[in-house]
Amino acid sequence: MEFVCENIGVSGEGHLSFAGQDTLALAEEYGTPLYLMDEDRVRFNCRTYLEAFKANFGPGSLPLYAAKAAAFKQLFRVAGEEGMGVDVVSPGEIQTALEAGFDLAGAWYHGNGKTDEDIRFALSRGVGGFVVDNVEELLALEAEAERRGIRQKAILRLTPGIDPHTYAAVNTGMVDSKFGVAIETGQALDFVRLALGQKHIELLGFHCHVGSQVFGEDVFERAAAVMLEFIAQVRKETGYVARVLDLGGGYGVRYVASDPSLDIGQKIASVAATVKEVCRKLNIPQPAIQMEPGRSIVADAGMTLYRAVAVKRIPGYKNYVTIDGGMGDDPRYALYRSRYTVLAAGKMGEEASFRCTLAGRCCESGDLIQEDILLPESVRRGDVIAVCTTGAYNYSMASNYNRFGRPALIMLRGGKSSVAVRREGLEDLTRLDV
Amino acid sequence: MEFVCENIGVSGEGHLSFAGQDTLALAEEYGTPLYLMDEDRVRFNCRTYLEAFKANFGPGSLPLYAAKAAAFKQLFRVAGEEGMGVDVVSPGEIQTALEAGFDLAGAWYHGNGKTDEDIRFALSRGVGGFVVDNVEELLALEAEAERRGIRQKAILRLTPGIDPHTYAAVNTGMVDSKFGVAIETGQALDFVRLALGQKHIELLGFHCHVGSQVFGEDVFERAAAVMLEFIAQVRKETGYVARVLDLGGGYGVRYVASDPSLDIGQKIASVAATVKEVCRKLNIPQPAIQMEPGRSIVADAGMTLYRAVAVKRIPGYKNYVTIDGGMGDDPRYALYRSRYTVLAAGKMGEEASFRCTLAGRCCESGDLIQEDILLPESVRRGDVIAVCTTGAYNYSMASNYNRFGRPALIMLRGGKSSVAVRREGLEDLTRLDV
Repeated sequence: MEFVCENIGVSGEGHLSFAGQDTLALAEEYGTPLYLMDEDRVRFNCRTYLEAFKANFGPGSLPLYAAKAAAFKQLFRVAGEEGMGVDVVSPGEIQTALEAGFDLAGAWYHGNGKTDEDIRFALSRGVGGFVVDNVEELLALEAEAERRGIRQKAILRLTPGIDPHTYAAVNTGMVDSKFGVAIETGQALDFVRLALGQKHIELLGFHCHVGSQVFGEDVFERAAAVMLEFIAQVRKETGYVARVLDLGGGYGVRYVASDPSLDIGQKIASVAATVKEVCRKLNIPQPAIQMEPGRSIVADAGMTLYRAVAVKRIPGYKNYVTIDGGMGDDPRYALYRSRYTVLAAGKMGEEASFRCTLAGRCCESGDLIQEDILLPESVRRGDVIAVCTTGAYNYSMASNYNRFGRPALIMLRGGKSSVAVRREGLEDLTRLDV
Repeated sequence: MEFVCENIGVSGEGHLSFAGQDTLALAEEYGTPLYLMDEDRVRFNCRTYLEAFKANFGPGSLPLYAAKAAAFKQLFRVAGEEGMGVDVVSPGEIQTALEAGFDLAGAWYHGNGKTDEDIRFALSRGVGGFVVDNVEELLALEAEAERRGIRQKAILRLTPGIDPHTYAAVNTGMVDSKFGVAIETGQALDFVRLALGQKHIELLGFHCHVGSQVFGEDVFERAAAVMLEFIAQVRKETGYVARVLDLGGGYGVRYVASDPSLDIGQKIASVAATVKEVCRKLNIPQPAIQMEPGRSIVADAGMTLYRAVAVKRIPGYKNYVTIDGGMGDDPRYALYRSRYTVLAAGKMGEEASFRCTLAGRCCESGDLIQEDILLPESVRRGDVIAVCTTGAYNYSMASNYNRFGRPALIMLRGGKSSVAVRREGLEDLTRLDV
């Protein structure tokens, strides 16, 4: 049997295995619903980027793990041990990185809504660089850096006007984005001039992010070309030469068998070739390159285990398998109609011929995890149901909707398992209630 | 000026007021983002249902507050003081009700995914009634009730096949719903027979829920008629006479000026007339009626205060006002494209002529709170922005996406304010991380 990722398999007993471990045993030991995270796969994915960067880009270039995909202490520890930088988006992520012992000199602080308090917090904790999204942030950062008597490293977020041909919710490089400042309208050049005039900001370069779950042939190449042309334009207009170009994240991940499997090494080599050629053509020095993989670091390192609670057959209409989790632990189908591969973990030897919808337990019709899937006819209450490739934007987007506690998250490594995030209990749900 | 709800107004200083209190002062005192809940309005809404029930339905009839709309201790306290029953959907909600001192005899336990552990927990805490969703739950409840030597009160959730003409995600009374058992397919009758054969379950009647945010003329009347016809059919086939009919929740709430404002008292009187007439025609005794208002109890009692962080004008494209909150505290626009009324709280005297999108601070393009709204041209960083009618499904659906802490929730009553749910701090965000 072939699965969406090579860390998925079938054990001798015919059980689904993940990272070489029996998922039924894990469900039994830790309970359900349960997030699993394959640490070896996270490390493998980090190394894929790190090696491709080393082989293709010049000194100072670095991939940053985009922590919003999944942010908890153990993951910052792993990213740090592998030598990744990180892209953080909130005081909460900065705090988590700190507690994990991550060196914040390698952190870049993102986000389109930083308050004065957020900026003060980040500076007080020594965050390496700011990705400045807008004029208000630039001026607030300058004021706070001046107050501290420091010169803060920063890059400016720009929108290159690239349509990555993905769906609207993850379409961020367009001119009308809520993020960054548009090149096309001329506002980006004004933004650069304003930044260059700030005494307490050391402008290192520029940032763009064209979208998420991108499979398109040359999306990053086109974005790089637009950004390099802007760098050349800025040099011509102001004399300023950018040293850093951050191309953001967004490489697509394989969720179902029909998704392609991207060769990240090859993709990065192709971007590097474009960068080299365009820089030569424009006669500008090659900037250090940053990228911000999040999904492609953790998505296929994750799996969620549930237990079936009920099976409904509505003759002439539809079938449902209801599980003991739902949009509270995975809102991605409700939000984006995201696709997933779903497996009956204890029945891998049986033919999957029962067409059904995997329904969550929340009191809301939209609480579905996946529609139109195939499970074995024998599926019944108590069966362990695995949803694959849930490492990104599941734990990080989880809520307490319906006042259910969020699942535990278990790290798997070298045949061993350990709790990385504890399960929320009843006492956790009411502790902030007065 | 006329607002979407009468608890919204303008103070002498030209500030937005809510429940008679100055929203700028509240934002200053408690910080932003901030949930406000007008306790007097919650009580008013409860009383509207309670009085309509008393005037129109027979003994034993009761409205149940559907806690999933907003579940925290103070709200259970208020619902209890007003004499409402509650509809709970999880051990977390049951625990919250208990800690608030709510008498669980008046609680009905809903949900399509109750595990054995959930059932044990609810029985151990003395939950009054179960709304049994499916065959597996019925048998698990019977087994646990037998073990405890009790006879557990229950009603069965059925799908009447009514299309309330609302959008799919809140469309739950259709035959192909994930909830309940369909009348049309004949499965509901089998379900009733099975329930009547369980020695430790006292079957009180039936439940249906046709959808949420329903404004349709006669949706509840049609549902009541279908359910009463089913009650008559069950009597004919089995001799069993249902004593309780729960018609679920779903009355629509006014979010924007163009939404109608329902007269709940009149609506309930109309349902009561239908119930009376259909019972007479079918010659069956009138059952006690239950309804489960959630949104219509708390939605217009809520308001969320943010501060603007950035204003982006992209000439020829679009304008954005970015706030210090977003889909983490209110995912309803991202999920359903829900509409809201948005006001600049400190600039109520200015003309609202700046057409813009209210964008959240999360690193995701889909993190918008509302598109195509009007705010004053002068809106800028630091301004308090109010989103109205956020009492339902905002706090209850909130997440820590991007590792932002969830806002505090403040109860307002008789000119006084107090914290009902404390703001999540950095220490709350990492406390479960190992």
